[in-house]
Amino acid sequence: MPSQFDPPSGTRDFLARDVAQREHAFAVIRSVFSRYGFEPLQTPAFERLDVLLGKYGDEGDKLVFKILRRGEHEASGEADLALRYDMTVPLARVYAAYGSQLPTPYKRYAMGQVWRADRPGKDRYREFVQCDLDTLGSASLLADAEVVSAQHDALAGLGLSGFTILLNSRRVLTGLLAAFGVRPEIGSGVLISLDKLDKLAPGEVVAELTGRGLAGEQAGELVTTLTAPDSADRVRVALSKTDEGIAGLDEVDTVLSLLSGQFPAGRIVFTPRMVRGLSYYTGPIWEVVADGVAGSIGSGGRYDHLIEALGGPDVPATGSSIGVERILALLPEADAAAARLDVAVTVMRADLGPDSFAFAAAARSAGLRASVYLGSSGKLGRQLKWASDAGARWSLIYGEQELQAGTVTVRDMTTGEQAMVPVAELPDYLARAGARG
Amino acid sequence: MPSQFDPPSGTRDFLARDVAQREHAFAVIRSVFSRYGFEPLQTPAFERLDVLLGKYGDEGDKLVFKILRRGEHEASGEADLALRYDMTVPLARVYAAYGSQLPTPYKRYAMGQVWRADRPGKDRYREFVQCDLDTLGSASLLADAEVVSAQHDALAGLGLSGFTILLNSRRVLTGLLAAFGVRPEIGSGVLISLDKLDKLAPGEVVAELTGRGLAGEQAGELVTTLTAPDSADRVRVALSKTDEGIAGLDEVDTVLSLLSGQFPAGRIVFTPRMVRGLSYYTGPIWEVVADGVAGSIGSGGRYDHLIEALGGPDVPATGSSIGVERILALLPEADAAAARLDVAVTVMRADLGPDSFAFAAAARSAGLRASVYLGSSGKLGRQLKWASDAGARWSLIYGEQELQAGTVTVRDMTTGEQAMVPVAELPDYLARAGARG
Repeated sequence: MPSQFDPPSGTRDFLARDVAQREHAFAVIRSVFSRYGFEPLQTPAFERLDVLLGKYGDEGDKLVFKILRRGEHEASGEADLALRYDMTVPLARVYAAYGSQLPTPYKRYAMGQVWRADRPGKDRYREFVQCDLDTLGSASLLADAEVVSAQHDALAGLGLSGFTILLNSRRVLTGLLAAFGVRPEIGSGVLISLDKLDKLAPGEVVAELTGRGLAGEQAGELVTTLTAPDSADRVRVALSKTDEGIAGLDEVDTVLSLLSGQFPAGRIVFTPRMVRGLSYYTGPIWEVVADGVAGSIGSGGRYDHLIEALGGPDVPATGSSIGVERILALLPEADAAAARLDVAVTVMRADLGPDSFAFAAAARSAGLRASVYLGSSGKLGRQLKWASDAGARWSLIYGEQELQAGTVTVRDMTTGEQAMVPVAELPDYLARAGARG
Repeated sequence: MPSQFDPPSGTRDFLARDVAQREHAFAVIRSVFSRYGFEPLQTPAFERLDVLLGKYGDEGDKLVFKILRRGEHEASGEADLALRYDMTVPLARVYAAYGSQLPTPYKRYAMGQVWRADRPGKDRYREFVQCDLDTLGSASLLADAEVVSAQHDALAGLGLSGFTILLNSRRVLTGLLAAFGVRPEIGSGVLISLDKLDKLAPGEVVAELTGRGLAGEQAGELVTTLTAPDSADRVRVALSKTDEGIAGLDEVDTVLSLLSGQFPAGRIVFTPRMVRGLSYYTGPIWEVVADGVAGSIGSGGRYDHLIEALGGPDVPATGSSIGVERILALLPEADAAAARLDVAVTVMRADLGPDSFAFAAAARSAGLRASVYLGSSGKLGRQLKWASDAGARWSLIYGEQELQAGTVTVRDMTTGEQAMVPVAELPDYLARAGARG
């Protein structure tokens, strides 16, 4: 039962541990992208409605969160703004707006929330982080390979190892259809059916294909070519018969030759049956799959005319999207230590507050996380209980006895051992403690 | 003239340099807050409409961005969600939802965008970052002082020095009104007028006060007490006559005694005429002013019953908000070097692409930012022009000559000097270059 204090359906509150895990992962990804010379771009959470609508198809448009007009226009019930649905439409707008101020090629990454009014479900949210990496203004396959390489390094940097990059090309698929004599007008339907080879039995896909107008023999051969153990070789033979097929194979082989030396063996695999669903791709396409994860954890491809279709200039482009939320679910939880206190400082008497404050400041100057006791109890036991709950490694105790002696009692919260440290020596003592980690 | 490619009114696109400056500042602030043991909280961009409305007064409600219902309900023109207007209402909801899972006291910071449909203007945006720091569950003045101290350290950490923390207490103000015989029913109006002593001449404020029903002599004395050079002393004398005044002074003096030792002299000043506009404060209040900046760059205070009024449990609370956007305007721009490339790798021939790729990877392994040339020209001059535009410190040149010699030419882009480095020695060479910074 959702309570009145739950966040809105499909959204999440992130408390300290969650934030620590997420921010760590984001920092790793940003650092890798930056090392490749990609620069960050941040755009507003909302765009004008006309910028967004009509870009995602009818189904996509329905998932856009629209913002009501304000003031006297609110009663109209009309919307004039909408929450960002992805990072690509804002990229097209930015490229159109700032083109001449941007470097050529424009290599940018964008990591931030997007909002989609999808039906919420397990691992499906209405607010989630999208992480995109794109190069605009280069027609070179080096750009595609670089994006794949950066995406790879980001995943490896996050500690993932059991993943594979499936590589294909739109032109391989076009060439394949031509080689099997598939009429162009049913080509996209055939690709949709072939995309199901992961989920359906080969016979079921053959049935779908004949339903789409392919001769039974033709459909059978096509499916066999794509599912046989030596599929890649068979596809190469078939493709050698058409110009588009030869060009597509050349794309795949160039990207493979650029990357194979960088990656562990088997990390990137030519996968002719991999059909990215979206029709806007024009060249190499790829998908990252991970052991034990349904669906992909990243994907991308070349989309040479999409930026123009989205309202920007006509510019060659290639890019990848990392499925950050799925990947976060694979990563270990943040270390509890990341959120815990190093030094807990007791406040045994109100008039000793300024001293306790100064001790906490000294601990912070030593790079330690430190806090004074903020409760109302003057009892040491109660205060040490707080220190223990806060995960403190040391407690500093400063009461009447310490005041008289001019010392601070430093209690190791793990061992219970206590040291009497002269007040003047406390900063050095804490600095050494901090350095020991 | 706004173009069709501009971001929506009152919002901004942040390109690489802006992002670098902003993210650096945010990282400094987060690091300071974390060292004080405050933990991060992230809540969704939108809340249910009923959670937000009625919390900010009629004027505030008008500034809330409302989100239209979806699907079959869209035509109703009704809203069911709204963009976050501040960080305090989400905090109240989270505290109500997760109270028992949260530490006591709950010390949290929240840094993220909020959205307000204000009329856009210079330094006034509809989307801006708010940075809040709050402690829930402690009635101790130590908690107030800790928040002020953390806020101070964050500002100092950002490199600001010419700022002053004006300290007062709601109870000082209540006591002051009592000492001057101001009838309680006109008290809040009188405070509103006194709040204008920064902008209006004393005589104008006196006129306002008499308009509100104060006797002329009473109004004159009140204003003189607050504006005289020895104002703080005069106020102390006046306050000593009322219980609330004595209690308020005690609050101020306790916070001062906790903090004065930590701060440079004059950094925090008892300022009895400082009236924070919002009526929900119940104890110490403060405002941070900076040389040459109109208005405040930070503010806060104790608000012991606000969380309950916002729908949470009744819990003592104190907190600060940092005016991040104003502060960002004071900070120097990000160093251009932060966004530039270290190593630019030429691609002199398509078949040498894999080698160039490997050299870039070696540079990245050495911690350098590296990219290969993604353009279509095979001319060295063109490629070096790109390297120079990208701000690269070194270019790696690898063409026919280098291929034959088994070397890479490393060109220092500042001096134009070139070194021939054997391919096998390149990683070490780059590592040394990276270490030299």
